[in-house]
Amino acid sequence: MAIVGLGLIGGSLARALTRAGYPVVGVDRPAVRRRARAARAVARTVARPEEAARSADVLVLAAPPSVNLRLLRRVARRARSGLVVTDVGSVKAPIVREADRLGLAFVGGHPMAGNEGSGFRASEAGVFRGRSWILCPGRRGAGRALAAVRRLARAAGARPVRMDAAEHDRVVAFLSHVPQLVSWALLDAARADPLAVRRLTVAGPGFAGMTRLAASPPGLWREILAENRRETDRALAGFLRALRRRR
Amino acid sequence: MAIVGLGLIGGSLARALTRAGYPVVGVDRPAVRRRARAARAVARTVARPEEAARSADVLVLAAPPSVNLRLLRRVARRARSGLVVTDVGSVKAPIVREADRLGLAFVGGHPMAGNEGSGFRASEAGVFRGRSWILCPGRRGAGRALAAVRRLARAAGARPVRMDAAEHDRVVAFLSHVPQLVSWALLDAARADPLAVRRLTVAGPGFAGMTRLAASPPGLWREILAENRRETDRALAGFLRALRRRR
Repeated sequence: MAIVGLGLIGGSLARALTRAGYPVVGVDRPAVRRRARAARAVARTVARPEEAARSADVLVLAAPPSVNLRLLRRVARRARSGLVVTDVGSVKAPIVREADRLGLAFVGGHPMAGNEGSGFRASEAGVFRGRSWILCPGRRGAGRALAAVRRLARAAGARPVRMDAAEHDRVVAFLSHVPQLVSWALLDAARADPLAVRRLTVAGPGFAGMTRLAASPPGLWREILAENRRETDRALAGFLRALRRRR
Repeated sequence: MAIVGLGLIGGSLARALTRAGYPVVGVDRPAVRRRARAARAVARTVARPEEAARSADVLVLAAPPSVNLRLLRRVARRARSGLVVTDVGSVKAPIVREADRLGLAFVGGHPMAGNEGSGFRASEAGVFRGRSWILCPGRRGAGRALAAVRRLARAAGARPVRMDAAEHDRVVAFLSHVPQLVSWALLDAARADPLAVRRLTVAGPGFAGMTRLAASPPGLWREILAENRRETDRALAGFLRALRRRR
């Protein structure tokens, strides 16, 4: 197993697979590689994704979405025959389309897990336990490739759920992308009110629960929301209709 | 101490004050009185609020908002001199105004605590621990009355925070009332989408956190939102502006 990007999800996956007995090869910049080795989250690290692609059975792309798309192209040129590629990004149609164009044995993946942290420091082996791990096989990703990525998801403690990439992108707009926007907006609105902002410390567990996601990394989320703009807009319209009906 | 209404908040307060060594008198309908006695959440129970008002030092109104307003009038006619009255409702200006009109020594109270449950069965002694308990004294509620209700909040493990009733109602619109509407609307929208509704089970911890409040009792919340309509509308407008800016 090779994992490119040892952030919150990639780092957590490295820890979970290492704990499950897999020899994990990690790829990231030097400081993160050192941290991952020190934490024994990986068996070894390499500097370049191409290097990992030459020896791994399964290569997991766990960088931000735009970087994953570039990695896909770099890896495609060097992939050994039989390499299975998957990712852990929040939007599936664009990357599955690109992998198909490149002729890779690709299974888009999206573990419905995580926390509001980011980076290797926030990673934990247990975040996938009992969670759904959505799998969207590309044209060459059914059969053997899908079976391999299913095993990987199960080894991390998750429950694989097969879905069409377009369906995934529509569903997560409701279950993840609009909730993210709403969490930010709740905190923004309270901060913009001259009275509420002075009283934020009185907020109870309800507000804390509704604004936990607002701590998620904004740069990564800008990419996700831009990539899934059409579905996010559709889900946002549905949310606004529902809100008017509740008022 | 007498508590009228042994639901989630009243029942939790009865448990917390009993644990802190106060002799608590509970008032509710017979089945709830029996349950509270069986749980040793109260020292004794009485059937009528007037009875509790005749002997208590502090009377806590912990029924839904509209019932609290009626109770205030009933209690005012029978209150022994020196009785301090407080409540635990989510909107403060209307009840403080009514208590002032009735000439009661009243301190409006709002513990920023709870969970999405309801009724005595959902009550727990620990819900107030470390939470803010907002106190809005009426015209006759400063001084001795405020000190008594502060002691009560502290005995339950909370941190008393004094606030003007109008400021309270504005602030909680941002910190509680709009989040409640938003939590419902997120769940409504997902349920209204033909694809998302079939895939609700894949939702991760983010969606669960954002829709936890949607399990709160709708009848009680209709009352709260109607009572604080002006401030909720203002906060909702702020939220929608913030949402547009994030999109």
